[in-house]
Amino acid sequence: MLLALDWGTTSFRAYLFDSKRTLVETRSAAAGIMQDNDGFEQVYYRQVGDWLGQHRSIPVIASGMITSNQGWVETPYLPCPASLEDLSKNLTRHETSKGDVIFFVSGVCQNTPTPNIMRGEETQMAGLRGCSERTAVLPGTHSKWIRMEGDTICYFSTFMTGEIFAVLTRHTILGRLLTDGSDPKGFTKGVEDGFSGLDSAGGIMSKLFGARAMPLLGQMNPDSIRDYISGLLLGTEIQEAVKSGFGSNVVPVICGSPDLVDRYQTAMSICGIQTSRGEDELAALGLMRIAAAAGLV
Amino acid sequence: MLLALDWGTTSFRAYLFDSKRTLVETRSAAAGIMQDNDGFEQVYYRQVGDWLGQHRSIPVIASGMITSNQGWVETPYLPCPASLEDLSKNLTRHETSKGDVIFFVSGVCQNTPTPNIMRGEETQMAGLRGCSERTAVLPGTHSKWIRMEGDTICYFSTFMTGEIFAVLTRHTILGRLLTDGSDPKGFTKGVEDGFSGLDSAGGIMSKLFGARAMPLLGQMNPDSIRDYISGLLLGTEIQEAVKSGFGSNVVPVICGSPDLVDRYQTAMSICGIQTSRGEDELAALGLMRIAAAAGLV
Repeated sequence: MLLALDWGTTSFRAYLFDSKRTLVETRSAAAGIMQDNDGFEQVYYRQVGDWLGQHRSIPVIASGMITSNQGWVETPYLPCPASLEDLSKNLTRHETSKGDVIFFVSGVCQNTPTPNIMRGEETQMAGLRGCSERTAVLPGTHSKWIRMEGDTICYFSTFMTGEIFAVLTRHTILGRLLTDGSDPKGFTKGVEDGFSGLDSAGGIMSKLFGARAMPLLGQMNPDSIRDYISGLLLGTEIQEAVKSGFGSNVVPVICGSPDLVDRYQTAMSICGIQTSRGEDELAALGLMRIAAAAGLV
Repeated sequence: MLLALDWGTTSFRAYLFDSKRTLVETRSAAAGIMQDNDGFEQVYYRQVGDWLGQHRSIPVIASGMITSNQGWVETPYLPCPASLEDLSKNLTRHETSKGDVIFFVSGVCQNTPTPNIMRGEETQMAGLRGCSERTAVLPGTHSKWIRMEGDTICYFSTFMTGEIFAVLTRHTILGRLLTDGSDPKGFTKGVEDGFSGLDSAGGIMSKLFGARAMPLLGQMNPDSIRDYISGLLLGTEIQEAVKSGFGSNVVPVICGSPDLVDRYQTAMSICGIQTSRGEDELAALGLMRIAAAAGLV
């Protein structure tokens, strides 16, 4: 059996596997490292204490932002290229005050001109079924584009798309004209304007102001602005990723929550890029595979 | 004589010219349209009521965000190309409840693929001494790059650089590691990384995350991050402006507060671009020239 934890910034997810390595139970709580400040050990026992009681000496493995310097047990970053075997050989063992043991997965880093780090996504990649070469896209607050060879993370890049969208619409002048409306055509135009990159009409830094000028000049309905900005940022992300070398010759696989995957697939399709969808519950699968490679199960 | 008002989002500036068209007095208050909500007429009389009393029937002219739909008297946008003569012929007359008259300057708009608007900068451009062709750069919350021919605004672009810097450092994960420190070398590296644009190391959307990863990997001192992010955004702005057609064959003139002009001149110099400085008090000079062209003085 295995108890696997995907413990991130905003959410806590627990997965219970039976002795046949089948996922039998899943729990989710808004108990991410920024949400619940009661102390991580207390959160841990509150969320899965009953499972630990029912299944004595069940091995436990955890990954995500819980391993960061703002988390419970800080683990190192393994340099790229980082394989499933590297991850399984570099677990950090932690014993709770009650004597229970948890193994924490390391993050992965990359010392390139634009350096990069991940915590949690390496585990999802361990869950992705390997093939000779693959580009995975993990949309989110900080979306990751990851180049895989088999089960090895070779190179990756991080785009602050989700967080930039949030602060632009909440805290800048662009938020002033926003409504709750949505408009697929506004999204499409945004993706196109973003994906066209830097041209005679400008780049992302000036095109963003277009989202202010267009409604004021009657060129855009206020209900379309939110989706336009979202599309503009997403189209820019896709353009930057593709131009900096991701996804050529392979069909990118988009991994994440169904809504976000839909949105990215739509955007990539507008850019003329064919994509596929990753399996569900990649973190759970990845935690099981790392635990298995480490001999915990 | 002339009473000229530069009334923006965050500040209110008043200029008193004598009968020889010489600027004799200046006032400044934190009474921008977002700061002082007592009612614009009340703010007006509080700030310059004494001057109006001393100089009966002095002509009054005003420009800036006070002419926007969030201001006192909304004026139209004149389409590009817009000359000094166009501005002087399109003043909006307003009579206060006390029977005093104020003339408000129009904004300027541009219906290009990335549409654009300005309110206030057209007045500064009226104050800039003309020459056959010129690129003016007005740094700020929303910095403007403006192509002038003589006293005509031909084309312009807006970069949300200042506001994006503010929200990134205040409201995103990039703010977490920030100190109050500053570092000219961090600024230089940022400008270089931004100005190099989209290359194999990524574009602005992924380079921003480098400001998170570098300090966590020990590649950057926390005291350097703020200036690095500032430089990255500024270098990106300059790259986008230059690549989309601004500043070729002419020496751009930077206009604004001395600190900001210094910073932009430093950044442009890092990018190998020679610049000059605009005169001080361009808004005051511009208001006087528009008033003179309109026959108010």
